[in-house]
Amino acid sequence: MFIIGELINGMYANIGTAIKERNKKTIQACALDQLACGADALDVNCGPASRQPLVDLPWLVETIQEVTHLPLCLDSSKPLVIEEGLKVARNKTIINSTTADPEKMDALLPLAKKYKSKLIAITISTKGIPQNKHQRLELAAYIVDNCQKAGFPVEDLYLDPIVLPVNVAQIQMKDILESIAEFKFISEPGPKTVIGLSNVSQGAQFRSLINRTFLTMAVAYGLDSAILDPKDKELMDTLITAELILNKNIYCDSFLEAYRKK
Amino acid sequence: MFIIGELINGMYANIGTAIKERNKKTIQACALDQLACGADALDVNCGPASRQPLVDLPWLVETIQEVTHLPLCLDSSKPLVIEEGLKVARNKTIINSTTADPEKMDALLPLAKKYKSKLIAITISTKGIPQNKHQRLELAAYIVDNCQKAGFPVEDLYLDPIVLPVNVAQIQMKDILESIAEFKFISEPGPKTVIGLSNVSQGAQFRSLINRTFLTMAVAYGLDSAILDPKDKELMDTLITAELILNKNIYCDSFLEAYRKK
Repeated sequence: MFIIGELINGMYANIGTAIKERNKKTIQACALDQLACGADALDVNCGPASRQPLVDLPWLVETIQEVTHLPLCLDSSKPLVIEEGLKVARNKTIINSTTADPEKMDALLPLAKKYKSKLIAITISTKGIPQNKHQRLELAAYIVDNCQKAGFPVEDLYLDPIVLPVNVAQIQMKDILESIAEFKFISEPGPKTVIGLSNVSQGAQFRSLINRTFLTMAVAYGLDSAILDPKDKELMDTLITAELILNKNIYCDSFLEAYRKK
Repeated sequence: MFIIGELINGMYANIGTAIKERNKKTIQACALDQLACGADALDVNCGPASRQPLVDLPWLVETIQEVTHLPLCLDSSKPLVIEEGLKVARNKTIINSTTADPEKMDALLPLAKKYKSKLIAITISTKGIPQNKHQRLELAAYIVDNCQKAGFPVEDLYLDPIVLPVNVAQIQMKDILESIAEFKFISEPGPKTVIGLSNVSQGAQFRSLINRTFLTMAVAYGLDSAILDPKDKELMDTLITAELILNKNIYCDSFLEAYRKK
């Protein structure tokens, strides 16, 4: 499982303040904390309150690069903001994210190619959120087709079935899980898959329990990557155990310790 | 999920002693405890140390029936012992278990019919433990075919893919999970599925974590029933959450409390 730490996001009060005050220490500590807990990459998002994302995102990228060489997941709904991040990135990058909208793909696919970045694509469109698995697969196929036409390698594409909160979209959970498995069959080689895990428990009680239970199921359905809170120890223990059960880690009595990265 | 409590088993010291000493209180307390934690049925096993299982099992059945009307899962490798249990059972019963051996099926199918008992069948045979999903499916199909020929209703059959310990059979875990999903397609109506959950962590460290992670996956693959320790609160919380995610319980903020039975 390729783990993308979610905590460098301006929507969290400490990070929002650190961005405003250009407080490198807080950002860098948050980066190192997540790496120590097992993150393979870091999501980087100025947050909705940023008034100057075109400046804030590159500042975040440069600040984080001072302490780690791990990949950065440049997270913004605005392609122009992502481009500013790409310009200063020396680490490997993942663009987070395009949707299935032609405009968005036309803007982001050339950037992903130019900067040799991977690309997360969410299976939504201007028509809104898909209501079932078939609509997700249709959007996924459209995205893959566009990548192929643009000469973007599908192996570098991470399809996100868009995880919805269980308290408002219970009926869709099974479809979301099955989408993770079925996205793989769209092309050969197939795209990878990713989810924004915390969405599943948005607004719900017992968030950590819901998160780790959903993640276990997603792992069973073949999930490749997740954006999550690597500081949630029970979540990380569960993830290690899920991968143990699926024979991705070899069993030893100290398996939790052995597979906690770092 | 139909939960079968596993704790009334002579292999546990307190139960073994209680059987020997004909101590009803311990047995009945163990029964009520498990029901209070959410068990829908109780496994009843004299344990390997019992010298007189033909007497011990009926005694257990009668002792438990004094305090509950819930179904009893008569657990013995010996059809004669199971028959003694069936004779005195007023509660509904589940025979645990037959294998795919013709001799065993010839002994137990008539008993299951005569006593209107459900039947657990493990997909093993005298050839040993199946090594992959296809061998499991072959044994499952043989069992279903035998049930149909004997006029035993397949809806009352619970197929057990035989869960192996993750520390010795990691490579088989995915096949076991997929068997749970695929057993359903053997007939129409299909058989139900059951697992002896604790086997997955036999001899391993962090047993409860392994148990609940495997159970979550099995639920995602459509498992109908499990023999487990209902007093493991984290396991039961995880099970409730897994069923919530799959839309089997409707979300409410107090979902854990709401779906804890009793």
